[in-house]
Amino acid sequence: MEAALARHLPASDISPVRLHQAMRYAVLGGGKRVRPLLAFAAGEVAGAHPDRLEVVACAVELIHAYSLVHDDLPCMDDDVLRRGKPTVHVEFDEATALLVGDALQSLAFQLLAQYPLADDAQRQLEMVALLAVAAGSRGMAGGQAIDLASVGKTLTLPELEFMHVHKTGALIRASVMLGALCGGLAEVDIARLDHFAKFVGLAFQVVDDVLDAEASTATLGKTAGKDAEQNKPTYVSLLGLVEARRLAQEMRDEAVAALAPFAERARRLREIADFIVLRRF
Amino acid sequence: MEAALARHLPASDISPVRLHQAMRYAVLGGGKRVRPLLAFAAGEVAGAHPDRLEVVACAVELIHAYSLVHDDLPCMDDDVLRRGKPTVHVEFDEATALLVGDALQSLAFQLLAQYPLADDAQRQLEMVALLAVAAGSRGMAGGQAIDLASVGKTLTLPELEFMHVHKTGALIRASVMLGALCGGLAEVDIARLDHFAKFVGLAFQVVDDVLDAEASTATLGKTAGKDAEQNKPTYVSLLGLVEARRLAQEMRDEAVAALAPFAERARRLREIADFIVLRRF
Repeated sequence: MEAALARHLPASDISPVRLHQAMRYAVLGGGKRVRPLLAFAAGEVAGAHPDRLEVVACAVELIHAYSLVHDDLPCMDDDVLRRGKPTVHVEFDEATALLVGDALQSLAFQLLAQYPLADDAQRQLEMVALLAVAAGSRGMAGGQAIDLASVGKTLTLPELEFMHVHKTGALIRASVMLGALCGGLAEVDIARLDHFAKFVGLAFQVVDDVLDAEASTATLGKTAGKDAEQNKPTYVSLLGLVEARRLAQEMRDEAVAALAPFAERARRLREIADFIVLRRF
Repeated sequence: MEAALARHLPASDISPVRLHQAMRYAVLGGGKRVRPLLAFAAGEVAGAHPDRLEVVACAVELIHAYSLVHDDLPCMDDDVLRRGKPTVHVEFDEATALLVGDALQSLAFQLLAQYPLADDAQRQLEMVALLAVAAGSRGMAGGQAIDLASVGKTLTLPELEFMHVHKTGALIRASVMLGALCGGLAEVDIARLDHFAKFVGLAFQVVDDVLDAEASTATLGKTAGKDAEQNKPTYVSLLGLVEARRLAQEMRDEAVAALAPFAERARRLREIADFIVLRRF
């Protein structure tokens, strides 16, 4: 992934140099790459060619990276540390960070449109639309807006879930779907992967909340304990640590159950589900 | 255009309501709609169906609107007035303005991917890639970065042109190209339209600089005289008003000359070129 991302990002000696340096800084050298892993593993279930999966994996990771750069800006979460390094607006400046996010989003759609990813082009257009919906106001960007509106409020569990289904869930589902659509699968199997992705996405967020409450900044590579400090509603603030951990495990089980018909072909997807629940960072 | 944009933007009663209200505020009720006009007029030359052109016109205008929202943010141009109304971050807040821009960009790619726009889907994928390149780090966003880096510097005329070819030229060319690609034209005719678009784009920027130096804030609908105040290099600061006006006319002539083989089919493109050079706002 690191090599593929480095290849698809503009070289740092191409004009505008500073913008391209900052784009590479934002994307390379860190991150769990969960979304690319999911795209590759879902593609494996669908028998997709790795060349296609690499492009799809880069596209979803670029969208993810752009969202982190914008989320870290002073007008949003105002964070100074990400993946153990200064955030983009700290290392460069705010205006550059803004443009980095904008340009990374464009690049994601460029990749998805300019490489052959599906057996017919009409299907590939549907893949582009799928990523656009997942990233947009009824997906990830919308989830951010709901998150902003909920700071300092008491949410119910369904409201919290609604927020996360958008904020992180939409792109995680898109990662699985895009990987699967690079190959050949029946509708019913696509629906199974979508069910898996939905619950893995939720589990991911529950664990994120647990880690933010438990972990130290050093282990996490980003500022820990920020949720409580900012009075943000989380699974931990609603359920407590023990119950939140139990919920994550339950969601992981629900996700993995959907994979049963794929037997050994879904081994990597199961491993990722376990990694998501058991990770310590 | 107003009706089409209103139809393609998410309704303001769909969650997240505030984000969708702000997206509609950013796009509707103002603007010269030069890029949509160019897409429609280029499509007319190519004999394209208006239904296709409407989608393409919306997509380029959404990209343009997103760039204005982000440009107006405090970390960029820090402007409070746009199209005679408070800018999005003034009317709403900075975080919402950031997300509005992000979501408008996603929506542009969604439209371009989800409606039938070309006789074969492979060509439509090329259209998506074309818009992505025009919007990205080697197009519009890159032009912004060059602009930022040039504040307070003395540029040569070729350096100023390099900036504008990216900052405004790339999206203007994309508007013309996307309109043309909705129809059927030979490569040589596409190249003619591209030549037209390149010079119209440059003329547009020269006139923008002239108007910023001459006009009042009331006529312009945005804060006038900002370029000089921010010590930004412009065609006027480099050439003076009279010479800048002459250059705009020269570029308009060069643009229109490329349209000669299209005779009457390019009447609207010629009218737009004249509008761009003669406009007072």
